Amino acid sequence: MNFFRLTFVSLVGSSFLFAGNSLLQNAQNAGLKPIPQSKLELLKLIDDPKNPLTDRKIELGKKLYFDPRISKSGLISCNTCHNLGLGGVDGIPAAIGNKWTANPHHLNSPTVYNAVFFKAQFWDGRSPDLPHQAQGPALASPEMAGDPKIIAKKINSIPEYVEEFKKAYGKNVKIDFKNITATIALFEKILVTPSRYDDYLNGDDTALSKKEKEGFKLFLNKGCASCHNGIALGGTMAPFEVAGKYKFRSVGDFLKINKNKMVKVPTLRNITETAPYFHNGQIWSLKEAVKEMGSVELGIKISDKDAQKIVTFLKALKGRKPIITYPQLPESTDKTPRPID
Amino acid sequence: MNFFRLTFVSLVGSSFLFAGNSLLQNAQNAGLKPIPQSKLELLKLIDDPKNPLTDRKIELGKKLYFDPRISKSGLISCNTCHNLGLGGVDGIPAAIGNKWTANPHHLNSPTVYNAVFFKAQFWDGRSPDLPHQAQGPALASPEMAGDPKIIAKKINSIPEYVEEFKKAYGKNVKIDFKNITATIALFEKILVTPSRYDDYLNGDDTALSKKEKEGFKLFLNKGCASCHNGIALGGTMAPFEVAGKYKFRSVGDFLKINKNKMVKVPTLRNITETAPYFHNGQIWSLKEAVKEMGSVELGIKISDKDAQKIVTFLKALKGRKPIITYPQLPESTDKTPRPID
Repeated sequence: MNFFRLTFVSLVGSSFLFAGNSLLQNAQNAGLKPIPQSKLELLKLIDDPKNPLTDRKIELGKKLYFDPRISKSGLISCNTCHNLGLGGVDGIPAAIGNKWTANPHHLNSPTVYNAVFFKAQFWDGRSPDLPHQAQGPALASPEMAGDPKIIAKKINSIPEYVEEFKKAYGKNVKIDFKNITATIALFEKILVTPSRYDDYLNGDDTALSKKEKEGFKLFLNKGCASCHNGIALGGTMAPFEVAGKYKFRSVGDFLKINKNKMVKVPTLRNITETAPYFHNGQIWSLKEAVKEMGSVELGIKISDKDAQKIVTFLKALKGRKPIITYPQLPESTDKTPRPID
Repeated sequence: MNFFRLTFVSLVGSSFLFAGNSLLQNAQNAGLKPIPQSKLELLKLIDDPKNPLTDRKIELGKKLYFDPRISKSGLISCNTCHNLGLGGVDGIPAAIGNKWTANPHHLNSPTVYNAVFFKAQFWDGRSPDLPHQAQGPALASPEMAGDPKIIAKKINSIPEYVEEFKKAYGKNVKIDFKNITATIALFEKILVTPSRYDDYLNGDDTALSKKEKEGFKLFLNKGCASCHNGIALGGTMAPFEVAGKYKFRSVGDFLKINKNKMVKVPTLRNITETAPYFHNGQIWSLKEAVKEMGSVELGIKISDKDAQKIVTFLKALKGRKPIITYPQLPESTDKTPRPID
């Protein structure tokens, strides 16, 4: 019964919905897509048949996501920089990790929410998906500074973790670094946040206010969706500077290390929660960020008034977060490798 | 109805329960008390009529407890060092805080679970209660390094927080540092963890196994409860060294700064989750810790076998943790003071 209801909604959500509504039609033409209301449609998008989502894997992945023992110091978890209570970010310009080391390229921590919809991970897009991405911060010396063998040794030294891996993957599971981080990624996959914007795209005309629709129209007309499109309103690679120079380009060395000058377009979902903005986190005001992108990427001057209208629309992208019970982590044993300061 | 049931249980939990059970009688004589099963009895113990517990205050306090923006850097929350998923501690020998500064006295982070039952807070007992205690780490430069005025300014700059304070305390609430930290303390008050040990003391003879009872008996006979008593099995002040010298006394300067040589007796609740042990976190093995205390405090040699039996009992002190939904923190605004690295 539930299934049919969901499927029906999903059909309604497809193209014929747009008949007679030019804003919706424009949004569709610009490549914007909602998070599907149908659980089935959503799973079709995010599930990997080679490692399908199950409740047990998600619960285990959640524990690992929140477990600071994965880091060398025992103090930094995935949630430290990608705080699920703060829009999936840390709220500081450049990430700070092991021994209070700032990101050497002055890169800002991107949000983990809706990252499953990105076509590439990391600011330079060097990673194709979440399971691959999750390996990076766990090992990077300015982040969690972990060692793959020690991380595996830690998890294998904790009987409750071993038991949960067996229950999730079967008795013969190999609990190695790759599997541990892949399990974290499975939890990250469910961190999707449907918003009033999605409700609108999915057919609820009342979900956005008149002012929000006005802002949305402006967002489309100004060309913002030429980069911020798809489900994530971002997550693809785009040229770093098209029409002008980014005001704070000299902060950090992203342009030097990034030879092809491409940057991952950040998602606009939950954007009001993820300041400061841009790869080096140099702009705190969302309105200023909108204006900056107008001149840098689109070669247009967006007025204060128009930027404010676009911000009014962007606020509607604040999504409903999954409700997460803070996990009780299984206790260490005498065999668990100790944290190293 | 529910009220009467609880009150009845509470009456049953009083002295006449012990008739005919010498272990229970010995426990009572040693000053051991269970966490009351009755919610009313529990509230009588932990509530302060001057600032009574309400759901709104607890929920607000939870948000503040998990909010790293209270710290100078925006990276460290109460939960960083008192991780509710890790027995209420950080699992490292000496606390590490702002700019990766180690605690200057090499002091270990004590658990926040059941701290409401302590007669004194901090290792040197300098604080009488949780509202007073909560002010310390928020300001201490090697911990959260906050400034009382800036903390208040941050919270007042976030309309959702202001609204929640008004709902919790009334329209004319003054949202200052004292009130913010007092609200955190209200959340901490509910972090109590009844265990099988409590079930046993509350009259369920089957709650402890034969081996656990054997360990409990040994725990009492050896004199452990001369310091580890009350509801918390700790939380009072005791002489630091009575019968011998602590093996790792030279690590840190607690003995130098602590002129009266008194130390707060750590709670034994959830002790298997809170390694490493002692004020300076130098002993990782619980069995070794038991033996060390035997020689330092009681002047007796506890054999490997007996220590293991006592550890078997101590495991039964692992409590049922409150289920905590990870909070969505209200977003910062343009007026929110920015984090300072």
